[in-house]
Amino acid sequence: MIYFNNDYAEGCHPRILEALARTNLIQTPGYGEDVYCAQAADKIRKLCGREDLAVHFLVGGTQANLTVIDAALRPHQGALCAESGHIQSHETGAVEATGHKVLTVPSSDGKITAEQVEQAVKAHRSDPCFEHMIQPKLVYISNPTELGTLYSRRELESLARTCRELGLYLFLDGARLGYGLASRENDLTLPGIAGLCDVFYIGGTKVGALFGEAVVIGNPAIAEDFRYLIKQHGGMLAKGRLLGIQFDTLMTDGLYFTIAAHAVRMADRIRQTMEELKIPMLTPGSTNQIFPILPDAVLEKLGETYVFSEQQRVDGSRRAVRFCTSWATEASHVDALCRDLKALCRKG
Amino acid sequence: MIYFNNDYAEGCHPRILEALARTNLIQTPGYGEDVYCAQAADKIRKLCGREDLAVHFLVGGTQANLTVIDAALRPHQGALCAESGHIQSHETGAVEATGHKVLTVPSSDGKITAEQVEQAVKAHRSDPCFEHMIQPKLVYISNPTELGTLYSRRELESLARTCRELGLYLFLDGARLGYGLASRENDLTLPGIAGLCDVFYIGGTKVGALFGEAVVIGNPAIAEDFRYLIKQHGGMLAKGRLLGIQFDTLMTDGLYFTIAAHAVRMADRIRQTMEELKIPMLTPGSTNQIFPILPDAVLEKLGETYVFSEQQRVDGSRRAVRFCTSWATEASHVDALCRDLKALCRKG
Amino acid sequence: MIYFNNDYAEGCHPRILEALARTNLIQTPGYGEDVYCAQAADKIRKLCGREDLAVHFLVGGTQANLTVIDAALRPHQGALCAESGHIQSHETGAVEATGHKVLTVPSSDGKITAEQVEQAVKAHRSDPCFEHMIQPKLVYISNPTELGTLYSRRELESLARTCRELGLYLFLDGARLGYGLASRENDLTLPGIAGLCDVFYIGGTKVGALFGEAVVIGNPAIAEDFRYLIKQHGGMLAKGRLLGIQFDTLMTDGLYFTIAAHAVRMADRIRQTMEELKIPMLTPGSTNQIFPILPDAVLEKLGETYVFSEQQRVDGSRRAVRFCTSWATEASHVDALCRDLKALCRKG
Amino acid sequence: MIYFNNDYAEGCHPRILEALARTNLIQTPGYGEDVYCAQAADKIRKLCGREDLAVHFLVGGTQANLTVIDAALRPHQGALCAESGHIQSHETGAVEATGHKVLTVPSSDGKITAEQVEQAVKAHRSDPCFEHMIQPKLVYISNPTELGTLYSRRELESLARTCRELGLYLFLDGARLGYGLASRENDLTLPGIAGLCDVFYIGGTKVGALFGEAVVIGNPAIAEDFRYLIKQHGGMLAKGRLLGIQFDTLMTDGLYFTIAAHAVRMADRIRQTMEELKIPMLTPGSTNQIFPILPDAVLEKLGETYVFSEQQRVDGSRRAVRFCTSWATEASHVDALCRDLKALCRKG
Repeated sequence: MIYFNNDYAEGCHPRILEALARTNLIQTPGYGEDVYCAQAADKIRKLCGREDLAVHFLVGGTQANLTVIDAALRPHQGALCAESGHIQSHETGAVEATGHKVLTVPSSDGKITAEQVEQAVKAHRSDPCFEHMIQPKLVYISNPTELGTLYSRRELESLARTCRELGLYLFLDGARLGYGLASRENDLTLPGIAGLCDVFYIGGTKVGALFGEAVVIGNPAIAEDFRYLIKQHGGMLAKGRLLGIQFDTLMTDGLYFTIAAHAVRMADRIRQTMEELKIPMLTPGSTNQIFPILPDAVLEKLGETYVFSEQQRVDGSRRAVRFCTSWATEASHVDALCRDLKALCRKG
Repeated sequence: MIYFNNDYAEGCHPRILEALARTNLIQTPGYGEDVYCAQAADKIRKLCGREDLAVHFLVGGTQANLTVIDAALRPHQGALCAESGHIQSHETGAVEATGHKVLTVPSSDGKITAEQVEQAVKAHRSDPCFEHMIQPKLVYISNPTELGTLYSRRELESLARTCRELGLYLFLDGARLGYGLASRENDLTLPGIAGLCDVFYIGGTKVGALFGEAVVIGNPAIAEDFRYLIKQHGGMLAKGRLLGIQFDTLMTDGLYFTIAAHAVRMADRIRQTMEELKIPMLTPGSTNQIFPILPDAVLEKLGETYVFSEQQRVDGSRRAVRFCTSWATEASHVDALCRDLKALCRKG
Repeated sequence: MIYFNNDYAEGCHPRILEALARTNLIQTPGYGEDVYCAQAADKIRKLCGREDLAVHFLVGGTQANLTVIDAALRPHQGALCAESGHIQSHETGAVEATGHKVLTVPSSDGKITAEQVEQAVKAHRSDPCFEHMIQPKLVYISNPTELGTLYSRRELESLARTCRELGLYLFLDGARLGYGLASRENDLTLPGIAGLCDVFYIGGTKVGALFGEAVVIGNPAIAEDFRYLIKQHGGMLAKGRLLGIQFDTLMTDGLYFTIAAHAVRMADRIRQTMEELKIPMLTPGSTNQIFPILPDAVLEKLGETYVFSEQQRVDGSRRAVRFCTSWATEASHVDALCRDLKALCRKG
Repeated sequence: MIYFNNDYAEGCHPRILEALARTNLIQTPGYGEDVYCAQAADKIRKLCGREDLAVHFLVGGTQANLTVIDAALRPHQGALCAESGHIQSHETGAVEATGHKVLTVPSSDGKITAEQVEQAVKAHRSDPCFEHMIQPKLVYISNPTELGTLYSRRELESLARTCRELGLYLFLDGARLGYGLASRENDLTLPGIAGLCDVFYIGGTKVGALFGEAVVIGNPAIAEDFRYLIKQHGGMLAKGRLLGIQFDTLMTDGLYFTIAAHAVRMADRIRQTMEELKIPMLTPGSTNQIFPILPDAVLEKLGETYVFSEQQRVDGSRRAVRFCTSWATEASHVDALCRDLKALCRKG
């Protein structure tokens, strides 16, 4: 079977394994206070173009989300996000387990607009019973979103402006940020994101690392005492160096960006084939995730060779599914998939 | 500098790196549902002599502690432990952050006795205001303890019997379990522990793994839906295979036990030298941790070459410190330390 | 101004004040362990036709909701309710503050159907990522609902059967239960509710008491150690007798039912007038809440004399508002309102 | 039986019942936004000599404690208090249920000193593992303490100064504040307390009200959005007026102080008799609580007529118990107790 179901089916980029092996017996302090973490953080600050950013390395996305949100909010405050937001749909209530409600707005493409934020906040503030409801205080977005779409620079600027004017934090979940930055439709940069968001993270787990997310905090109110919160939520790795070594490797010689670009190129080839075959898409996309709508019969056939993930039923005979490429996707697998798609869909 | 300050200063046993490299590009399902996790769990069940045990792999000790305790307790129930218990002293209130109080009993050697448990529970139940206090429901012990001491088989049996009679869970934190089992004074076995505890874990982070704790649950009330709780607390690694591969390696051909035995042998040599030098100890010990009481002047001199950790001031001129060996400790470092100790303390 | 905006604008039924005065200097044990609480609980058990029910008196509805739900759920479990459910919309995230997510289903009339529950639970259980989502474990309904509608006996039986089959708890928020039972359309009884729900409460705050909700628990899993949870959540009144005296009074000689019937009669008169005037309603209703849709101009005029509460804008020129009667509503006020409605709406 | 076991055995001062009856049918807005709450808050601000204080009325002490502490702390911060502090010992882990650890210091008289606070904070800050421990951020004291002792003005100034210097909040639980202010040994005043504490409360439940605590907040960081937190924790009474009416009554014509003084006079008479009888005391005291150490035989005899509460066993034949007077204590009961004490102890 060939896995196209996600971007975490393999281990890690070989250079990371090499770095782990090379440093294996060197003794370092624990808990992220080693030289590798320091180096990796420095490189990230440089790539973001700001010396004053706090950079912390966490093991995974859910952990990053719950720790950041818990650090940012007082008990009566909530996180506003799209219905499809990962914190709302796929983290087993991790945010609620820290006591905070997730407030959702409808979204067909996984994005939330500045207007929606403004409307939600104004509705809250003008409600005579506002104190009987959770106060929206943080906007959570994913970029790329869970549906493979991207925020444009203008959209992010607009969100950031609205958040600033209303006194909300803007938090960008970048679990797949590398793939977003590598998209030909992307017009965002790391310095741009660092300038617009109060906090965001650069995902490693899905972009070549064994695990790890680099949380970048620009707002001192969230950064204060952040390491206490990491520890409290069980996210402080004794051998924190593992995170440092991985991000140091990824951020050296543009490795992170190179391997992300590979994944997107692979996805582009699949997308192009699908376009040629006039296969409709659930959402437009230009990153490493593709959401085609395909007949059940085709999917059954494809399922004999490929693993993909189910997204949703579209009608009586068709489902939207997700194909993912990654830093590790082999061109030969992509070729095979394109060939099989052509065979199956032209027949159809 | 030579690090004797803890047992997580290096990376991991080379065989683990080899296994990671060997499996690196194999595609597997995520979130611990891969074949390596299944294999590792099987091996652990065999070593524990019970087919019905639930085995889950978590990234670290604090995460394991908070997830197990949150899974076991209703909101009004608390965990009873020694004052020196890790959950009480060094996890930034991780248990309280899940809503549960930690109830402590005094202890000079890091252990808690069956009598203390019985007394605490009976005091609670006979108090006219019992409903105004947290109900003790789980006993948390570490073996080896934070002070390097060990529970004997009789002590653990007695604790387990008391817990069963009183309706409490017994939870053993085995972050350093390997080093405990390798001690010449130990009379516990994995099947013995699995039979006596409702839940315990086999620590990997400090015994040769990059990271990871294997949580072994015998009590179905705690095991039920445990994976939801792992996810909710941010402990479910996307590439769960990393934990499976590591524990599979450690549990193959007795590697875990062999490397732990090495650490204890190294510690025994240091201990023997200290005994010869009549250096007093804060607590008796036979595992990889040593807590000598040394004059400030000696410690200052030692500190020029060795890193050790501060435990507590004993009097105006002496402190108790901790020396730790590990699976990675080199004999030449131990020789150097013994030689320097002799030079410094015979002078003194 | 005449208040029709809610059913808690006055103090309490005079007989309660008399009872408080009569017993004022009698000394009793604290924390709900007095004779009045015991008597009141006995009367409620009799009215419910079951000797085995646990009855606890809490101060208010939000407190009752959060305490019951926290007592019933493990950390990864959530409460399923209609979007308009009070716990979702108007309790400042009180349930989330105990760590539990509220899961909502759409509803136009404030009710949730057995089919919706079944669908939600089956969707959860058949999702390949079920462990990444909150497990629905409790169904929260209000009767009457927040929109003034009622569950029929058949609907409640159907919900209860579905919950039992799926292993979910059924929890009925009866903040306005008296007004529901007094409706001419109601076919539920206290023994019926007690037999179908795992837990419910009989609201006092809105039905003649100064404050207080009588939580009635039939399911021992929820009842166990419930007083600890009341205390933990700050709901255990030192002078618990105040709740006992109030419910004892309300449950004596059918006072609770008599005064609720008065409120519904008053509402019926308003409803009848509105029907004659062909004023459309947001939701059908037969209890003490009325949700007419009225032109802005009419509402402005009415607002000069009457206080009512805003529900929602319906279109460019009309809003739905809420008129509430209560045990304390004076017939003369109702007459005035009916007269004014006729004058305003006939003109229109 | 005559109850001396606590100060909440009766209902309330008759003037409160009168006020409730007088206002009973007046319609007001709910949730504490009525004129009575406004009036009562004004009177309290005047008594405290500061216009800028936020005043909120909560139903009970545990609720007040958990709401204030949750409002004040970030997740990794804890409340420092004496071992005997009510939040540590008798609130079923209410503070922990909001996620915060209670940090204790030993105390024989129920008080905590500025030196202890300084030492705890400095120990925390100088610990190399400080991020692995809860950060002390708030000092919780009770005045009078749970052991009947009082803070002097100098002691409170010293605590306040230390807290300010170290960046900690000072929170005074005044559940029995009235009885403290009425003591002949007291040298504190309401303006003094309001000037020194970031937040405190004036207890009503134990000093003449049916229920209620007036939380007075001087520090805007704690006051911000406080009503959201009251609601979230189930503490917002629908008929908030009940709290306003009670505190308005208590704060009118010095009623609160007059009735507290009565209780203390009654206690002084008992104390004087005990002194004459050379009965030793567990702690010195001058408020409405008395902690005599008496032979078991005497206590058995006394127990036939009087209800008192058990404090602790002192030795094989003697126990410390607690006698409480209150605003409602009758002089004849005190006379009887004194007479019986003399008869029993002179014999002895």
